[in-house]
Amino acid sequence: MKKFWKVKETNLIYKRGIVSFKEQLCEHTKRDISHSFFKLEFLNWVNIVPVTKNKEVVMVKQYRFGIDQVTLEVPGGTLDEGEANPIKAARRELLEETGYNSNQLISLGKADVNPAIQNNSCFFYLAPEAKFVRDQDLDSTEDIELEVVPLDQIDDLIDTGQISHSLTILALLYAQKYLKL
Amino acid sequence: MKKFWKVKETNLIYKRGIVSFKEQLCEHTKRDISHSFFKLEFLNWVNIVPVTKNKEVVMVKQYRFGIDQVTLEVPGGTLDEGEANPIKAARRELLEETGYNSNQLISLGKADVNPAIQNNSCFFYLAPEAKFVRDQDLDSTEDIELEVVPLDQIDDLIDTGQISHSLTILALLYAQKYLKL
Repeated sequence: MKKFWKVKETNLIYKRGIVSFKEQLCEHTKRDISHSFFKLEFLNWVNIVPVTKNKEVVMVKQYRFGIDQVTLEVPGGTLDEGEANPIKAARRELLEETGYNSNQLISLGKADVNPAIQNNSCFFYLAPEAKFVRDQDLDSTEDIELEVVPLDQIDDLIDTGQISHSLTILALLYAQKYLKL
Repeated sequence: MKKFWKVKETNLIYKRGIVSFKEQLCEHTKRDISHSFFKLEFLNWVNIVPVTKNKEVVMVKQYRFGIDQVTLEVPGGTLDEGEANPIKAARRELLEETGYNSNQLISLGKADVNPAIQNNSCFFYLAPEAKFVRDQDLDSTEDIELEVVPLDQIDDLIDTGQISHSLTILALLYAQKYLKL
C-alpha cells in the first residue's frame, strides 16, 4: 500500500499562531480523478495522568468549545515551538494546570491524534506520587478547576460518559494497563 | 465550573459537504478579554473491531493525508446525514471497507473525539465471529487493503507504533477489556 495521490495545489485557508488549516487539491496517480483533502497542522501534544500516593487521579475541569460543555480531563497541553522534548512539556503543563509535580514522569506511549486530518501526535505520561507544590499558573484565557478522582472510580466515570475526551480515556487506559489495574 | 465566554461573532471559514470550520470571536464574562476560538464540525463517527473465529482482527491499511503516511487502523467511517443510529453506520462501514459482516455488533462505548476543537463523537463496536461475505465496496477516492492481525499481536503493534491512530488504539483497548485479554 502506498500513496496514490499527487498534490497539485496547497491552499492555506486559516492560520493562527501555531495552528494551520490547509486544503490540498490532489490528482490520483492511477485513476482519472481529483479530490480536495484538508488538514490541520498543530505542534505535538502531551497528556499526563498524575496519581497521588492515595491512589487518586488529579483531573481538570474546563469549558470546551468543540462540544460546548465542561469536560473532566487529565491535564495536558501543547509543546512549545521548537521544543523537542515532550517530557519537559509534560512537566510544565502538569505544574501550570494543576500545581502538582512528580519526581519522575513515566512514558505510557504515544499516538497520532487523527492521521486522517491532523499531523500531530500526543505523548502520554504517568506522574506517580504526584504532590501539590504550588498554585496553578494559567493563561488569561484559561479557567481550570481541579477534581481529584479515586483510581477505582475511573471506569465508572468513563462508562457513564462523565469522562468523554478520547485522548483522556486513552491516557487513563494506558495508565491502568501500566499499573495493572 | 461553567462557560465563561460569550460568543460575539461566528465566522464560517470553510465548508465542504458535511464538514465546517468555524471561528468564534468571544468575550470573557468575568475578565476584560476577548479571544478567537475555532472549531471543526463533523457528523459522528464509528470504529469497529472485527474479530474472526480464529481470534484475528480484520484491519485496514490506507494512506492518510494528516500524517502523510500509510496507517494500520480498524475499519470505520462517518454516519450519513440524518442517520441517528450509529450501529447501522457501523455495519455499513464494516461491510464496505472490509467485505466482512457479523451477526451482532456489541457496543464498546463512545468518546468525544476532541472536545477542545471538534463537536463530534466516535462510537466503538466489537464485531465478533466476523466473516468475509463479499468484496469491498469503496468510494472512488478510497484505496484500502486488508490486513488480518492475530489478537495477541495487537499490544506489540501498538507499542512499536505500527498501530498509531488514537481512535483505533482506543477501540482495540476497549475490545481487549471487553474480551478480558
